[in-house]
Amino acid sequence: MESGLDMQLLMDTALGRRPADLVVRNGTLMDVYTGRMLPGRSVAVAGEWIAHVGPDLGYAVGPETRVIEADGRVICPGFIDAHTHLINYFNIPEFLSYAIPSGATCLIAELECYGFILGAEGVRIFLEQTEASPVKIYTLVPPMVSLSPAAESLMITPEQLAGLFEDPRVIGLGESFWQAPILQSDPRILGLIRETHKAGRSVQGHAAGAFDRKLAAYAAIGVESCHEAISTEDVLNRLEMGFYAMIREGDIRRDLEIILPLRDKIDFRRVILVTDGTNPGLLIQKGYLKDVVQKAVDLGIDPMEAVRMVTLNPAEHLGLDKLTGGIAPGRHADLLILPDPRTIRPQWVISKGRVVAEEGRMTVPVPEAHYPDRLMNTVRAPVVSPSAMAVPESCADREGMVRTLDIQPGGLVAREGRARPRPVSGYLAADSAEDLLKVFFMERISGRGESFVGFVRGWGQKRGAVATTLCWDTGGIIGIGENDEDLAAAVNRLIAIQGGTVIVVGGEPKLEIPLRAGGYVSELKMPELAGRLLRFQEVMASLGTGLDFAHLTLSVLTTPAIPFIRLTEKGYYRFREGDIVRLGS
Amino acid sequence: MESGLDMQLLMDTALGRRPADLVVRNGTLMDVYTGRMLPGRSVAVAGEWIAHVGPDLGYAVGPETRVIEADGRVICPGFIDAHTHLINYFNIPEFLSYAIPSGATCLIAELECYGFILGAEGVRIFLEQTEASPVKIYTLVPPMVSLSPAAESLMITPEQLAGLFEDPRVIGLGESFWQAPILQSDPRILGLIRETHKAGRSVQGHAAGAFDRKLAAYAAIGVESCHEAISTEDVLNRLEMGFYAMIREGDIRRDLEIILPLRDKIDFRRVILVTDGTNPGLLIQKGYLKDVVQKAVDLGIDPMEAVRMVTLNPAEHLGLDKLTGGIAPGRHADLLILPDPRTIRPQWVISKGRVVAEEGRMTVPVPEAHYPDRLMNTVRAPVVSPSAMAVPESCADREGMVRTLDIQPGGLVAREGRARPRPVSGYLAADSAEDLLKVFFMERISGRGESFVGFVRGWGQKRGAVATTLCWDTGGIIGIGENDEDLAAAVNRLIAIQGGTVIVVGGEPKLEIPLRAGGYVSELKMPELAGRLLRFQEVMASLGTGLDFAHLTLSVLTTPAIPFIRLTEKGYYRFREGDIVRLGS
Repeated sequence: MESGLDMQLLMDTALGRRPADLVVRNGTLMDVYTGRMLPGRSVAVAGEWIAHVGPDLGYAVGPETRVIEADGRVICPGFIDAHTHLINYFNIPEFLSYAIPSGATCLIAELECYGFILGAEGVRIFLEQTEASPVKIYTLVPPMVSLSPAAESLMITPEQLAGLFEDPRVIGLGESFWQAPILQSDPRILGLIRETHKAGRSVQGHAAGAFDRKLAAYAAIGVESCHEAISTEDVLNRLEMGFYAMIREGDIRRDLEIILPLRDKIDFRRVILVTDGTNPGLLIQKGYLKDVVQKAVDLGIDPMEAVRMVTLNPAEHLGLDKLTGGIAPGRHADLLILPDPRTIRPQWVISKGRVVAEEGRMTVPVPEAHYPDRLMNTVRAPVVSPSAMAVPESCADREGMVRTLDIQPGGLVAREGRARPRPVSGYLAADSAEDLLKVFFMERISGRGESFVGFVRGWGQKRGAVATTLCWDTGGIIGIGENDEDLAAAVNRLIAIQGGTVIVVGGEPKLEIPLRAGGYVSELKMPELAGRLLRFQEVMASLGTGLDFAHLTLSVLTTPAIPFIRLTEKGYYRFREGDIVRLGS
Repeated sequence: MESGLDMQLLMDTALGRRPADLVVRNGTLMDVYTGRMLPGRSVAVAGEWIAHVGPDLGYAVGPETRVIEADGRVICPGFIDAHTHLINYFNIPEFLSYAIPSGATCLIAELECYGFILGAEGVRIFLEQTEASPVKIYTLVPPMVSLSPAAESLMITPEQLAGLFEDPRVIGLGESFWQAPILQSDPRILGLIRETHKAGRSVQGHAAGAFDRKLAAYAAIGVESCHEAISTEDVLNRLEMGFYAMIREGDIRRDLEIILPLRDKIDFRRVILVTDGTNPGLLIQKGYLKDVVQKAVDLGIDPMEAVRMVTLNPAEHLGLDKLTGGIAPGRHADLLILPDPRTIRPQWVISKGRVVAEEGRMTVPVPEAHYPDRLMNTVRAPVVSPSAMAVPESCADREGMVRTLDIQPGGLVAREGRARPRPVSGYLAADSAEDLLKVFFMERISGRGESFVGFVRGWGQKRGAVATTLCWDTGGIIGIGENDEDLAAAVNRLIAIQGGTVIVVGGEPKLEIPLRAGGYVSELKMPELAGRLLRFQEVMASLGTGLDFAHLTLSVLTTPAIPFIRLTEKGYYRFREGDIVRLGS
């Protein structure tokens, strides 16, 4: 990968033939390479790059040189989030205005959302949107494992992947759930992995629930990381199999505690802290990378180890070691100045040689991301009538029973159940008294709007309907309703506004969260968006839904990442059987 | 880089759908990833690859499976020599028959010798010669920093380098002495470094004597390693600057002790043990990688750390981590079985899934290397007469003084001196009583045999002459003589036998060491070659040379790697001045 390193400029600066552009003077350097804290160090910067790191760089200060007096404070490498999702909920510039002051100078983004609406073109749009970012943003190409047959038409092929790898910011293949290559020997996924090996890029993994033989098989095909360890034992199993173990502190899970028993027992060089994405409320309330590192330090992890898990370790893992992850000549000048080793609060954030944030606030503008038309009109489906939600009695089996999707406590896992819906005039009706509601999925990929209506339990809503275009791992609309009219109205409203989440009760919109870009990303400011999502949770609670993260529960109904039964436009998808089934037996 | 990983085979083996080809059963696994010793582990191998590593792999054993009972012994990753020279003295198969039983399963070779006689073509020949090796052999492209103007015509260009990188075994750019890019801003060298960055390969360094600003400048241009630390302080300086620090235990130096003060004080993850090449005598007497690791353990370095310095650390450094350096599924099955963690004596050596050595002996044949004609006829120079060694009095300055090359104690460094040679019939004569001898260098690149005659002190020879084609960092013949007749005879003998080292006294050959391949490599068996080199030292001692390693002293007279004055075909090269000067002032 071409780095653009200006060798002559750097030599001239290091040798003292020209002054540095920036000198951070007299700090305590976190030398992540040896694990030492080195007092009395200065860092000389030329352009985007570090030219020299040493005890006395007075010679590098000229009349035009910006000098930051570290005054004994800690000079720490900028943080890397090695596994995140940047195109859910918030738009990228809005996110960066929080992430950068939090110390993030390098982000590795999964792109499945854009993939499931625009295929390879989605990756290109993301690359354009992030090109002018003040921090490094790399992307992984989504392997696009979907349960939804309509998604087939958008699947990125190995040939397309090879083309995408021509951009050096395309750093590897995104998380490919282990089931597709290992249990199904999916030739397209295996082809993508092979192509990624060929290009010398990284294959990111997702080995939730795999152990022993299956975990070995997943490692054996050349998958290099897993961010799905949820216990100490999981961490050890993954490390022993040669994976980098990414520990999550974000939206989906907060698992940092699982590595505490390993302190001083194992080498953490292959352990990485990641967020795996966050959401607006969490971002505002819990912060971002600085807060993850602070939590690690507060839990008793040595600050050097904590910092290395978001700097050198991910840089080495992803082949970025020559560029970032430590403070040394020839690396990007990605630096944080911290008050002391145990206070992870960047007073200055320097990215590619430029001060981008001070005391928690951006000091440079974040360029707006361009959202092209083809990204703003992705809800390609016909308007539906309430009759589209009707389920004829004939869909039940001979005993009048239907399959149900039963949401389990926690709101993520769902199991297959059976119920006997109340027949009304030849149709099967939802029954909120029994917590038996209609669940609807319509794909928005083909333009034909193929759809399926099933039944769900465990959602708890007593009145109205809810729908969202923010579906995991396919392009579509998920809805749940207590009556067909509201359900159809919610779905139609999403088509009208081209993406978002809505609640409709008695024909009246109760709440709207616009997610216009791709049906995933909002143009709202972060606090406003966080407020709407909080309001969503409150309205859902007032309607009877007792789930802790109702929006997440709704969004994941289409994902292959969480067992045991999910939705597709052709029917339920059952993991154990690996089949799609309709309502009756 | 395409690895040839057979994903289906590995999945099938890991999942138990087919038996493994080889199972190493019930050993104590060195888990270099976490730093733990894991008892009761087995390793299942399919083809060249590890399919599974776990506590009980009985399921993987079928009727055809070869089983090695480790019986609690240590299963250790195969060793990597990350910086060596494979084409000095011994031929490759002969070397491998020593190196492989010593635990080497991966070698990274510098190729400057082939470069200085055949340019880029030399690299291609080496790749052919090592293609069928039972262990992995990678090569670095020589940046070819030479003092000799004739070498210009062979210099590898950035365009040629890009072509060579098409072979995945060309792993990077070899050691580029820091002076050329940093002090001279040599545009070709900077171009080679840029091309290497572009290809995502590794830039190996050589920062002997550089510190502070110059060391920073060298790091800043993207050089990634240095194997020239000769003190503890050097090691720390290099690590802090972001270099991998390679510690030498080989032919040139044995420096392992310099890292002892750092034990338990710094993280060794970026410290690597290398040989930097060896010679036949040393190889027989001191062994190879196993003996280096044994020395580290005997000096009190934890076996896990010692092993990681020749396994995981170099693998990570060189981008080979996905392929080797640890024992995990998807890696090459490069394994050693050791009696216990402190006894570094491989009972079995397994390379790419095949048992290649047992109890110190090869169990598979090492394929012969092919030496094409163009490699066997490289001493392209006209026969010389004794008169070519004559130095007219007019070459001295007005006071009759000439510059001399004064070999310093230790035999490597040489300083510029001045002497007044005895004039005889209008010519300046050598004078062994004053230890003032003729020193001769003739290039063997252009075919014209351009040459220079100077004077040397500190060599000590009382009678006869010596000459060799084994010149560092250029293609030529170096000779030293007490009289012109023997000196010319020695040089002519080398032209006749197309390479080697000879001693001639009174017109009689006293010793010959044929080095036919390129003038660098012998076809002799290792013990015979070691015997000849020992005999060389004895004969030279009997002739009055008191140097400890006389052959090495002779060979390095042309290298830019050792200051302060060297030989070229145009005259002396002086480092400080960066110029070529002839005899007089």
